[in-house]
Amino acid sequence: MWNVLVTGSSRGLGLELVKQIATKSEFNAGLVLATARSCSSDLQEVILQAKGSVVFVALDVIDEEIIAHSAKAVEIALRGRSLDILINCAGVHGETHGKLALMSGLEYQFSANVLGVHNVTRHYISLMKTSSTKKVISISSIFGSLTNAREVAYAPCPAYKISKAALNALMVQYALSYEEEGYIFLVVSPGWLKSDMGGQDADLTVSQGAEAVLNVVMSASDKDNGRFKNIFVPGWKKYDGGDLKW
Amino acid sequence: MWNVLVTGSSRGLGLELVKQIATKSEFNAGLVLATARSCSSDLQEVILQAKGSVVFVALDVIDEEIIAHSAKAVEIALRGRSLDILINCAGVHGETHGKLALMSGLEYQFSANVLGVHNVTRHYISLMKTSSTKKVISISSIFGSLTNAREVAYAPCPAYKISKAALNALMVQYALSYEEEGYIFLVVSPGWLKSDMGGQDADLTVSQGAEAVLNVVMSASDKDNGRFKNIFVPGWKKYDGGDLKW
Repeated sequence: MWNVLVTGSSRGLGLELVKQIATKSEFNAGLVLATARSCSSDLQEVILQAKGSVVFVALDVIDEEIIAHSAKAVEIALRGRSLDILINCAGVHGETHGKLALMSGLEYQFSANVLGVHNVTRHYISLMKTSSTKKVISISSIFGSLTNAREVAYAPCPAYKISKAALNALMVQYALSYEEEGYIFLVVSPGWLKSDMGGQDADLTVSQGAEAVLNVVMSASDKDNGRFKNIFVPGWKKYDGGDLKW
Repeated sequence: MWNVLVTGSSRGLGLELVKQIATKSEFNAGLVLATARSCSSDLQEVILQAKGSVVFVALDVIDEEIIAHSAKAVEIALRGRSLDILINCAGVHGETHGKLALMSGLEYQFSANVLGVHNVTRHYISLMKTSSTKKVISISSIFGSLTNAREVAYAPCPAYKISKAALNALMVQYALSYEEEGYIFLVVSPGWLKSDMGGQDADLTVSQGAEAVLNVVMSASDKDNGRFKNIFVPGWKKYDGGDLKW
């Protein structure tokens, strides 16, 4: 039984991850800790359906004090059990129209997408210490690939791209720091999803994206520590389940 | 005649860059704008020797208002001429001892090494518009390579590494945004230098590092836009002048 915490679970990919984790028998979920700034009505519905296996915990990734407080609440909810899987899904996205000199919002997107993940991870990692699973999966993006930057130059979100490159670098540092203790850290690009962030022209439904991300979570082993994974979606050459380039 | 601005020029690599730019005939320098928070006695000495070709401009990369103010001062000093080369050398470095959960200083190092470079670049880029050279070189580090992270895991400066990865991503975004207008943006790793930052066990003298960086600056052409360059130092296999991996 895996106890799992998901950030950013009030909507979009985070909400769908919580829903699938709680309902898929192959996931073998124990307690699912659904965190967000506030509990949306969609998340409340998931919690009702789950009959006790999903618990809402207030957590704003921008505020380290709230993060620290939430970790204490989760420790109590776990009643001595370990946290097994942490999925950093909360993130923000902003656009820049025009030349790069006009880019604003870099500091804010860094705060949420990088510093927020660092603060969540550092406050929760001690709850994973006795787990035999110890997986930390952060939702990144192919937009965070420097190698691939020219191919996605059409997307007007440079601050988001820079923040995801920095997130990848953060996770690599965690991977190296904790690998001797059996932790597995990886970043995954969830594909282009029909969410508020991705818009309705996207490739995949949020449900397809969440399923593919959970396949990465479930199959992740020691050899994946510190890697940047693509999802696998049958029929999609661009979602081949391989490693993405930094 | 190239008009050149160097940030972080009160000491270390930045100071040596100013000195060599001002004195090397092959560099063909016009006005050299040496910027730093304050003018060190070493920089004052360089300015005295240069007899008018080096000018000090107060600039703190952490403070966007000061950056904007400095750009106005530089515009006046240029008296209608263009700025041709901008070298972003100012940067900060901090260490983390122990596990990554203990890492502090990520926000500060990001502010100086990434946001600072963005703010300097965005405020100075319009002064380069009429130049036929238009080169922006940012001093990065092999520590910013994710591919190479395991090889440099011994160095206890994860926040610095993450900030340099983000700096690389920032420069790639600038490179893509401005390439049609003839700008060349690149990041260069200056090698491990015997400076305050590098310590006395380092590979190269600051003078060797500055010379090698200036060779990259001088030889940079359109095809180098958006790339991550290694320096070339004869006799050093690790400083082969090639491209570094993201």
